[in-house]
Amino acid sequence: MDIHCLFHQNQLDYDGTQLRELFARTMGCPAGDSAIVFRGACHVDVAHLVDSADALAQQPIHSDDMLHVIMEFFSVDLLATVYLQRLFMVCVLEELLGRGVPALRRGDDIFVDHRKFSVSIATASRVSTLIHVGMNISSRNTPLPTVALGDLAIEPWEFARHVLDRFSREVRSCWEARCKVWGVS
Amino acid sequence: MDIHCLFHQNQLDYDGTQLRELFARTMGCPAGDSAIVFRGACHVDVAHLVDSADALAQQPIHSDDMLHVIMEFFSVDLLATVYLQRLFMVCVLEELLGRGVPALRRGDDIFVDHRKFSVSIATASRVSTLIHVGMNISSRNTPLPTVALGDLAIEPWEFARHVLDRFSREVRSCWEARCKVWGVS
Amino acid sequence: MDIHCLFHQNQLDYDGTQLRELFARTMGCPAGDSAIVFRGACHVDVAHLVDSADALAQQPIHSDDMLHVIMEFFSVDLLATVYLQRLFMVCVLEELLGRGVPALRRGDDIFVDHRKFSVSIATASRVSTLIHVGMNISSRNTPLPTVALGDLAIEPWEFARHVLDRFSREVRSCWEARCKVWGVS
Amino acid sequence: MDIHCLFHQNQLDYDGTQLRELFARTMGCPAGDSAIVFRGACHVDVAHLVDSADALAQQPIHSDDMLHVIMEFFSVDLLATVYLQRLFMVCVLEELLGRGVPALRRGDDIFVDHRKFSVSIATASRVSTLIHVGMNISSRNTPLPTVALGDLAIEPWEFARHVLDRFSREVRSCWEARCKVWGVS
Amino acid sequence: MDIHCLFHQNQLDYDGTQLRELFARTMGCPAGDSAIVFRGACHVDVAHLVDSADALAQQPIHSDDMLHVIMEFFSVDLLATVYLQRLFMVCVLEELLGRGVPALRRGDDIFVDHRKFSVSIATASRVSTLIHVGMNISSRNTPLPTVALGDLAIEPWEFARHVLDRFSREVRSCWEARCKVWGVS
Amino acid sequence: MDIHCLFHQNQLDYDGTQLRELFARTMGCPAGDSAIVFRGACHVDVAHLVDSADALAQQPIHSDDMLHVIMEFFSVDLLATVYLQRLFMVCVLEELLGRGVPALRRGDDIFVDHRKFSVSIATASRVSTLIHVGMNISSRNTPLPTVALGDLAIEPWEFARHVLDRFSREVRSCWEARCKVWGVS
Repeated sequence: MDIHCLFHQNQLDYDGTQLRELFARTMGCPAGDSAIVFRGACHVDVAHLVDSADALAQQPIHSDDMLHVIMEFFSVDLLATVYLQRLFMVCVLEELLGRGVPALRRGDDIFVDHRKFSVSIATASRVSTLIHVGMNISSRNTPLPTVALGDLAIEPWEFARHVLDRFSREVRSCWEARCKVWGVS
Repeated sequence: MDIHCLFHQNQLDYDGTQLRELFARTMGCPAGDSAIVFRGACHVDVAHLVDSADALAQQPIHSDDMLHVIMEFFSVDLLATVYLQRLFMVCVLEELLGRGVPALRRGDDIFVDHRKFSVSIATASRVSTLIHVGMNISSRNTPLPTVALGDLAIEPWEFARHVLDRFSREVRSCWEARCKVWGVS
Repeated sequence: MDIHCLFHQNQLDYDGTQLRELFARTMGCPAGDSAIVFRGACHVDVAHLVDSADALAQQPIHSDDMLHVIMEFFSVDLLATVYLQRLFMVCVLEELLGRGVPALRRGDDIFVDHRKFSVSIATASRVSTLIHVGMNISSRNTPLPTVALGDLAIEPWEFARHVLDRFSREVRSCWEARCKVWGVS
Repeated sequence: MDIHCLFHQNQLDYDGTQLRELFARTMGCPAGDSAIVFRGACHVDVAHLVDSADALAQQPIHSDDMLHVIMEFFSVDLLATVYLQRLFMVCVLEELLGRGVPALRRGDDIFVDHRKFSVSIATASRVSTLIHVGMNISSRNTPLPTVALGDLAIEPWEFARHVLDRFSREVRSCWEARCKVWGVS
Repeated sequence: MDIHCLFHQNQLDYDGTQLRELFARTMGCPAGDSAIVFRGACHVDVAHLVDSADALAQQPIHSDDMLHVIMEFFSVDLLATVYLQRLFMVCVLEELLGRGVPALRRGDDIFVDHRKFSVSIATASRVSTLIHVGMNISSRNTPLPTVALGDLAIEPWEFARHVLDRFSREVRSCWEARCKVWGVS
Repeated sequence: MDIHCLFHQNQLDYDGTQLRELFARTMGCPAGDSAIVFRGACHVDVAHLVDSADALAQQPIHSDDMLHVIMEFFSVDLLATVYLQRLFMVCVLEELLGRGVPALRRGDDIFVDHRKFSVSIATASRVSTLIHVGMNISSRNTPLPTVALGDLAIEPWEFARHVLDRFSREVRSCWEARCKVWGVS
């Protein structure tokens, strides 16, 4: 359950098509569970939304500048992947709280002062499950009131590293917790 | 994925043998995923520990008075149950934070000012998976420095109800998140 | 394991493309296990058949007027979905028998006096499993000898409601049966 | 998914302890999915009940003479095993109906004229899942009003053979149905 | 777990598109786990590679004449399918060794005197898992140094029959080994 | 899928009770997939056999001196564990062949000149799956004709290290093979 983390330094815009089988692999990650971090605009039009709630509401996603994380898992089903997605958002929350930011979590969303900080979705492919998390670097030109890392004076890459460290430790310690107990009858 | 919650009002001490198949069922819960809440001392001697780390350290568990939650799930494996256990502890954390208590989470443990607030374990039976969470009501006579609901002036049953509400919503919204997405290729 | 049932009142013809991820969801059903009921012609040409037996036999499906049910499940695999499909057909059988119709089941087909009453298929998507059941309302213009709800003087919507009720109870009681037993060694 | 059927001719009483890992194997069945059929009294006292509903109601099971079937499966989980149990009871129902007996099914129970014909339970072991079905051969000395094969003038072994044939065909055709379809997206 | 084997006598070239859901079924195999054996050239261009390592290396696959086996499984996940793929290559290895050929295995590749004998890949579809194995009949025009059945004076069809026999026995005996043990605690 | 290997230097006899949940853990291995290697006599009487074939044949297992490997896995089911057991025996086979020993494999048994070299079994616990492999160090006092590492002039610990290395690489490369492919439709 070790996660390969790849920090892709060049700008890369997210339009939804990056949420596909082996995306991190084609960007240079070794085979296995992975997280690729990159920075770029986020624009997903209605045709590329995988969230049926957003699609039915005809609600495209837009942000001028975001910190993106795409994770891919090869040994958990979609429901467990949603649990992992929530734990990832908890790592974001705890990292923000640790820096004194009064953040709140509602499901897979993080808010600061009622302004939305992030977008996230989890889905399945034929060979894996996938999570996308986008965190605002800039809060300009967003369809809803948002807050961004820029507003909070947080450096994106350093923030990403800390969140990924927290999440990697979380996933590893969950695996150890699963492996250290006797069964009961 | 709806969880039947049973608040068992009579005192009931926990000695580890309650962490067994269909315990909530035999206490009056209907068949299905369940959470039973009760209050009583906690004493698990080394022979009844299911955590091999505690057993190898010969470290029995003791608390004079605890708020106990035993949950049983019938459709998730042990690793996903550990993820649910973490999400439960996050609900405890967020409930404490919401009340102004400066709590911190480390894995499945909650701390306040470096004092331990809770114990928790997840395991599997032949027909289900199980989680025990014990939260101190009193901090007297514990082997480690602890903090308790009593110290924080929090009423145990009312606290339990809020935490269980949070967790039930979390589990339900995870299920909906799992069911609302199109796959990708 | 509760199934959201949606009775879609407007005519809707079935051509095979409705058997897809989140079809009920896009028709207005909430996220989760679902059954959508609708009425319309049934015409699936060879290119849209998911049943390889029909495809190899080059046997398109046609009926002028059918009662359609499309079900989607998010927590069972394809083999268990076939079991559920059979149990659904048993509910149809038992509902017909209860009305005095001398129906017989052969696998996932229902016959009355050697005439075919229904078509059915179960398959998997990337995020779910799916079942289609079509029951003849009219027996005109079918490639094989058929019997229809019209011939049996049964009102389609009322029939659908009774079958769905039976099936929902069946699925719920299976879940309870799964959750009420101690394991053995 | 082929089921080895063993017809054990010598009398063998059922007291609940036969519902265990590899019982059919130790009676001479080859390794693999199995059904062992035998005849004998049925008496399960409260301590050996695996059904928590019966145990909580303190309701032992008794019949002077029963046709017993114990099935063991090695590749389905407990929920799918409950589906198989229901399909087995449907085979019993259809076999009775085919002989002109006005039988009815309610969940995993078969009734004739409001009298109970059968008992059944499904559970899991560490290596398999198991189903017990008991069908009355005699209706004397039962705690509830019952009907028996003797009352219906049905020869038990011949009846068992027909039911097992139906069920084997059902299971095989479910497997083929699962394997003959293209997926959808 | 019985595998239907189909020996397709007419020449059939492999270009990667044969590795799809129900390919053997559409060639005449009954529904269920299957292995189809055929002979023909092998040419998979970069666009049709499912192996991301080959795709990233821009390495098309070519052989003038190969013995092909495509297997499809309906009850194992992708990781277990990779285990089965390895066991299949072990059957190839042991068959060669039994004929006095000094073959060696490295993962899913077979070598003779440092020359490559075979190519292989395992992947998943929406309804099954699939394995392709190609074994050189001719060693002409291959991008790497290869060895072929022709060089070893081995008749391809007879070789295929022996390998498939070994593999069928292996898979069956694995299933029996899985079904013959009591659990432990 | 990394396997912690523990070489336990002190003599330890195997009587079947070591094949239990978390045995390696209680001997000092960290939580997670594990292989513990030790040396000692092997005597499993009929009451402790988990293999029903041996138990029905009333065939106890005995060897004066064996190299033992007990492996425990926390993320594969019993059938996949049998596949892993076979792959382990293949690693033993290939290691022997690489040293010029004319070994043959039949299922999970290794033979040299028709003499048995090893015993092996795979089973499941409530929280894991387990494999035991015993390889003769001495061929004295065995119930069947056997061959031993001593007869082959192979040092047991050095042999164990090479076999475990092979197997660890095998398991890791299977995982990578599972994670490197795009799905098909």
